[in-house]
Order: sequence, then C-alpha cells, then structure tokens
Amino acid sequence: MKLFYVLISLLLLLPPSFAGSTPNLVIIFADDLGYGDLGSYGSPVIRTPNLDRMAAEGLRFTDFYSAAEVCTPSRAALLTGRYPIRSGMCGNRRVLFPNSKGGLPPAEITIAEALQPAGYATAHIGKWHLGIHEGSRPNEQGFDFSFGLPYSNDMDARAEILKGKGGSGSPNPPHDGWNVPLLRDGKIVEQPADQTTLTKRYTDEAVKFITEKKGGPFFLYFAHTFPHVPMFASPAFKGKSRAGIYGDAVEEIDWSTGEILEALRRHELAENTLVFFTSDNGPWLIMGDQGGSAGLLRDGKGSTWEGGMRVPGIAWMPGRIKPGVTPQLAHTMDLLPTALALAGTPAPDGLTLDGTDLSPLLFESKTLPPRPFFYYRGDQLFACRLGEWKAHFKTQTGYGQPKPESHEPPLLFHLGRDPSEKRNVAADHADALAQIQQAVKGHQSGIVPGAPQLR
Amino acid sequence: MKLFYVLISLLLLLPPSFAGSTPNLVIIFADDLGYGDLGSYGSPVIRTPNLDRMAAEGLRFTDFYSAAEVCTPSRAALLTGRYPIRSGMCGNRRVLFPNSKGGLPPAEITIAEALQPAGYATAHIGKWHLGIHEGSRPNEQGFDFSFGLPYSNDMDARAEILKGKGGSGSPNPPHDGWNVPLLRDGKIVEQPADQTTLTKRYTDEAVKFITEKKGGPFFLYFAHTFPHVPMFASPAFKGKSRAGIYGDAVEEIDWSTGEILEALRRHELAENTLVFFTSDNGPWLIMGDQGGSAGLLRDGKGSTWEGGMRVPGIAWMPGRIKPGVTPQLAHTMDLLPTALALAGTPAPDGLTLDGTDLSPLLFESKTLPPRPFFYYRGDQLFACRLGEWKAHFKTQTGYGQPKPESHEPPLLFHLGRDPSEKRNVAADHADALAQIQQAVKGHQSGIVPGAPQLR
Repeated sequence: MKLFYVLISLLLLLPPSFAGSTPNLVIIFADDLGYGDLGSYGSPVIRTPNLDRMAAEGLRFTDFYSAAEVCTPSRAALLTGRYPIRSGMCGNRRVLFPNSKGGLPPAEITIAEALQPAGYATAHIGKWHLGIHEGSRPNEQGFDFSFGLPYSNDMDARAEILKGKGGSGSPNPPHDGWNVPLLRDGKIVEQPADQTTLTKRYTDEAVKFITEKKGGPFFLYFAHTFPHVPMFASPAFKGKSRAGIYGDAVEEIDWSTGEILEALRRHELAENTLVFFTSDNGPWLIMGDQGGSAGLLRDGKGSTWEGGMRVPGIAWMPGRIKPGVTPQLAHTMDLLPTALALAGTPAPDGLTLDGTDLSPLLFESKTLPPRPFFYYRGDQLFACRLGEWKAHFKTQTGYGQPKPESHEPPLLFHLGRDPSEKRNVAADHADALAQIQQAVKGHQSGIVPGAPQLR
Repeated sequence: MKLFYVLISLLLLLPPSFAGSTPNLVIIFADDLGYGDLGSYGSPVIRTPNLDRMAAEGLRFTDFYSAAEVCTPSRAALLTGRYPIRSGMCGNRRVLFPNSKGGLPPAEITIAEALQPAGYATAHIGKWHLGIHEGSRPNEQGFDFSFGLPYSNDMDARAEILKGKGGSGSPNPPHDGWNVPLLRDGKIVEQPADQTTLTKRYTDEAVKFITEKKGGPFFLYFAHTFPHVPMFASPAFKGKSRAGIYGDAVEEIDWSTGEILEALRRHELAENTLVFFTSDNGPWLIMGDQGGSAGLLRDGKGSTWEGGMRVPGIAWMPGRIKPGVTPQLAHTMDLLPTALALAGTPAPDGLTLDGTDLSPLLFESKTLPPRPFFYYRGDQLFACRLGEWKAHFKTQTGYGQPKPESHEPPLLFHLGRDPSEKRNVAADHADALAQIQQAVKGHQSGIVPGAPQLR
C-alpha cells in the first residue's frame, strides 16, 4: 500500500504524460478574423458562445501572434514553425496568386510531415494558399487527406458577373462571382465552389475525419475560408447576427468550432486532443462593414501594428489544460514544437525552428523563458517586441499607404500601459530600445533567407 | 396532494418572487472605467478575475450606458432614474466643483429614498459628487450611512505641493497633493484623504455594512473613487499590473468586488442580493497611460461617441439571474425602477422616470420593449439611439475640442455592423433617421428642465 501511495504521489508530480495514447492535435485557423471579433475578446456585436465556452474551459491568450500580417506567409509559418523569410514564402507580392509560380518548398517540413512518422493520420480541410504546383500541395506536404480551396476565395474573380454587383467587399456578393475551385485530394469537385455552404461542408468533413480516425493519433488542420471577403454564410446563419454578413460568417465559424469540440467529446477524445483556435492575421479594415475589428489594437491586416498580427488564441484540452487567461507571449510558430512534444517525437535533424514548445505553459502553468518576437512585412523586418516593449523600425498601414515609413530612432511603445500604441516613448527609454536592437541583431545574423516564392 | 402540485406548478410559472425575504441591492460604480478595461470586455492588460467571474455567473451587458459623459450628471441620473436635464444636474460647467453653489435638489428622489419606506437600510460608500450643501448631501438624500469623498479626488489641488511633481495625470502623484476630505456621515475624519488606501477602506466599510445589515433588506451604493486621476493603489496592488498604476487601481477595484461578493456568499445572501457593477462614464483618454480604454468604441469621457457613455454593465444574483451575455440596451436610469420592483414598492406618485424595470430581462430572460436612448452632453441633446441606429446631431470629442460641431443632416451609424462609428450612412437610411427624429421630438416635448445646478 505504501508503494502505491508513493507511485501515485510521483505521478501527481510529473507533468501530464500521454504515454499509451498519443494525443491528437486540431488546429482551427480563421481567415482575417480580428482580435476584437469574439465575445471573449470583447466583441459587443458577434455572438460566439462556443468559442467563449472553449475559452472558459481552456487557456485564452491575450498576447498571441500570427507570424505575418497577410495570408500566405502566415500559413507557411504556422505549418513550418519558421519565420516565412526562411522558407521564402514572403515578399513584395504579398501572397500567392493563381498565376504564381512559387509555393511552399518541398524541403520545408510541415506539422503534418513531422507527425506522420509518429503514426498520425493527417488532414487538411479548408483554405490552403501555399501553392498549387507539384511539391507544394497539401497531399505533398504531409496531409493524407485534403478538402478545400487552393487559395483565397476572392481570387479568380469573374469580371463579367461581378460587373455592377459590387466587388469582394460587397455585403451581398454574387455566389458565382469567383471561379475558385473546390478540391478533394487535388481533384476539382466543384467550380466555382459554392461558398455559401463551405463552412458547413468543411465542418462535416472535419467531423467525419475525427470519427474515422478516432482510434488516433490524428492531426487536423482546419483552415477556414471565412471571414475573408467575399463574405458568405449558410442559410441558417445569414442575416442572423447584429454585425451583418461579417458577423454571420464568424457566428457560423463559432458553430463549426462547437461541432468539432462536441465530436471530440462524443468520441471521448476531448482529454486526449489539443485544440488550438487562432487566426491568420488581423481584420481587413478597408473592407468596412465586411472587415471585422482588432478591438483596442491599432490598425489591422497588412500592417505590423498590433492589430495586424495579434489575434485570438485559445488552447483547449479539458483535464490537461487548466482554465485561465494568460498574458504570456506566444505565436503560431510555437505550434510545431508543441506538436512534436505532444507526439513525443524529436525535431528533424538540422531544422531551424523559430517557435518554442508551449507544453510547460499549457499543461503545467509555467512561465516560458522571455523571448523576442519579430514583426515582418513581406521580407522586411518592421518591428520587434521584447517583454512589454515594442520598437517599430518601419511602419505601413493596412489602409493602402503606398510605401513604408522608416523611423530613426525607432518608435517605442509599452504594450502594457499603451496597448493601442498611441504614445511613442522612445526618448525616455533608450535602454529598452538598445535591448531590442541587440535582439534584432542576433536574429538577423541567424537568418538565411529562402529562395523567394512570391515574385 | 393534487392541490399541492397545482400550487407548485403555479409557483413555477410565476416570475421569481421574493416574498418573505425582500432582496438586497448593491450597486458598484467605478469612476472613469472604460468599456475596454475589464478582462471580460476584452482588456489584454488588466486582470479582473473577480469581475470576470461575476460576469460568468451573471448577466453581462454589451450595450449598457451611463446617462452622461461626465461624473456629476451621471451620478444624478443613476440615483434618480432620470435624465440629468430634469434635475438640473448638468450644464456648461460640466460637474460640481468645491465652490459650486448647486447640488442634487432635495425634491429629487434617490434610490435610497425610494427604498427607505420599504424598510431598507441604506449606505453610500465612496465618491458622492452630488453636492456639499444642505439638502444635497448623502445623509439628506436617503442614506442612513455615508463614508467617502464629497467630490472628485483631483479637486482642491494643492499647487504648492504639486509644483514640479506632475499634475493629476501623473503616474506617481504625490499622496498629499489634493486637499480632498474624507467624510463619515458628513463629518471630516481625514484631510487630505489618504488616497493610497481608499479602495481598501471603502471595501472594509462595505463589508462591515453588509455584515451588520445581513438581516436585510439593505441597499449599498458603492461608488469608487478610482480609476479617476490622480491614480493611487494600495501597497498590495501598486506596481503589480501590466498596465501601470491605472491597471493597479482597476485590479484593486476587481479585488474589492470579489470581497463584496464573497461577503454576500459568506452570509448566504448571494441569492437574495442583486449586485450591479458599472461605471459613471468612459475612459479619460487625455490622461494617456492613466486614462484607460474604451476598447473598440470611439472616443471616451466627455463625448457622446459610444466610448464616452457605453460602459461595462454586469448583473449578478446567482440562482435568480441566468448566466449569459445580453445585447439588449439598458442604462443606469433603469436601476431605480428595477430597485422598486425588487422591493415590491410602487414608484412615488407623479414622478417622471426615464428608466424601465429590468426584472423581466434579469430574472426571466425576456426581451425588453424597444426604446430610444438619448445622449446628452451637459444640457444639450447630442445624439439618439434607436435599435441599432444612432444619429449624432452634434459631436464634440473628449480631447478638448473647444466647441461642438453641428451636423445637418445628422450623422448616422449602425452600431451592429459598425460599433466603432466609422462609417456615416445617413445618405442611405433616411427612414432610420426619420424614426430617430420622431423619437427625439417625443422626448423633448416631455422634458421640463430642472433649475440649473452646475453654473
């Protein structure tokens, strides 16, 4: 009996171990969802009861970042755990277009590729936007299964249909105004994709995948098409929110998230599945009513002000993650190292990663070592955060400012006392600025840019 | 037995009745706390676990308003249930000053006066700011007990001490820089009041009052001095928040609220006490780091943009109020009619009230009848909201814009699709504007301005 108690005590002291049943991973990635667009992040107009419950049951991050201010580089960073500059998935042409020649290089290792050797079934559902050519496509980047759009839903616009009906920012866009195909494992199954029911169909496929692979382990990368313009919602959601079609689309994503969590509960997988919800960049503010909100943060998509890159971040794994709110800095590049830790798999040899394993924070409520975060716009380093201090070397709004503005000395903001970046205090805090500049120097000396993919 | 079941069934159909034990009422009123300053309203930098728990256990309002954009009129409206124009408690001199001759007219009926005939013990704790002359003081306006400051904590500045030490907006103000007295039932007990421990002492007095009056019924009006500048916090809170001294002060108010709720739980009064938490107006943005945030709302204190008057609003009464978030419009003038309903007391004869009883919403999750809300700046009607539409007839920022700007046609915003009031859509919605103008006409025809008190 004594030995029994000793063993129990030892078990209680150990970090949660997942021996015996390798945990599953689900990443839900919204598109252009702003920091202020969920109820739990202060939206007064969009109802997100499922995400709010997920936040209440899980760990809500106040300071979670996407690694880029637009779509393609953000997705590359999430899946590879590396700043996009390393993979070449960033540049002056900000994202991939249907006529782009580039794509995620085959040599890059995605979360899916990293998990496959550990026996994970892997699925990509939703938007891809990391290339349509050989070697860059989902099935060639580690996903056993793929269902969704190859790029953004506003690409391949059909001018003849859109004429006189408003562009992608319309509150009531024509359902056949974009010739984006819907692919299943690389094959076109519908063109143009019927966007009005995409979220619903993605969700059905996601639940089906979870159900089929419930024996585990599995990795689901669920990258929503919305709330990127043009804005669509299923009949059950259209016209239902206070916030117009933008709110409808977000409320459908909220519903979808509820369906995923419910499927996990139903199959008794909730305690063995880490679910992480976040967004690829800030809200696309120039879209007006169809553009979402960064809450109290400055600017939005396309800028390295906080509103462009700080996004909702919610981690959920009932019984393993203690409910709470954390002010600790984390970002999408942390998800690959975290996935490796969950799977008990070492990082591939020689791979340079920019993220850190979040397990100590998620499962043991520990404080992560302090680390800088670098804000890139395209392949240019625009800003750096260290602790509460953020220095801007260059700025460019998401509202169409044609050229970046350089700042020498850099602008300096204290994100604790001034989360909206209103008051430049560089003149009074030379020490903070010097520390940031040192961090930047260290970072840049270690960067080997990949061959540019977004020309 | 059959009769028994019939009776039980009837009881279940009835709205919650409080027969036998008249419910208590606690109103907690922060000073200059912004819409975005609580965790549950999206603050990334201020930790408010007690208020967030209160919100999670209670009803959180997304669209709750104070009845004025500055202190004195806001307080008059809350306590009387009437727009300040009726009591004369508004004007060009925006608030009462130590040398003001006016005050809340004795003929006005406060919540305390309305509840006293129903046997309520009544206490005012904290800031008053409704007059220091005979007839206007707390003990003469229905409060059996009063402990606190007669006006704002930045009044009666001591120029000789403040010289060279920064003004009221300093992050580290001198503790003896303002000669504000602390009063107990009208008698000075300390001058200048030691502001560093005010929140703690207010809380101790509040808990003592609840404990002494636990036999009930009681009404506690707990009007905090903070986070109004100059900013102070107790040693246990100073320097502890990410958001500087402003965050420290709010986190101490959060602690205080936790103490109040805990006292109610300890005395088994939680299910019989309605607690309402709100703020007197939006954040004082010109105070910079000491100024708080209205979140995604536009502008702050002193303006009739949403950030000036929309404030956090949380109702709590475990077991009686169903936890949730409501988008229904409500405001501080609803608290008097709600208090009367709780107490089962009719409104005094001939009294014109501008609020409505919130009981159907609070206790039965019902939808309140639609009604307009009027935004006054001083004695001028600046704006009106009806449903999601808000029209501005005049605007003036809280940043020191010297004169109001008139708008003809009025500006029109849809607060659902555009909660930040960025996109004037008056040209496209003449119908909404016409309805608002009709509501304004009806309102103005029924207004009899009281004798001006703020000259």
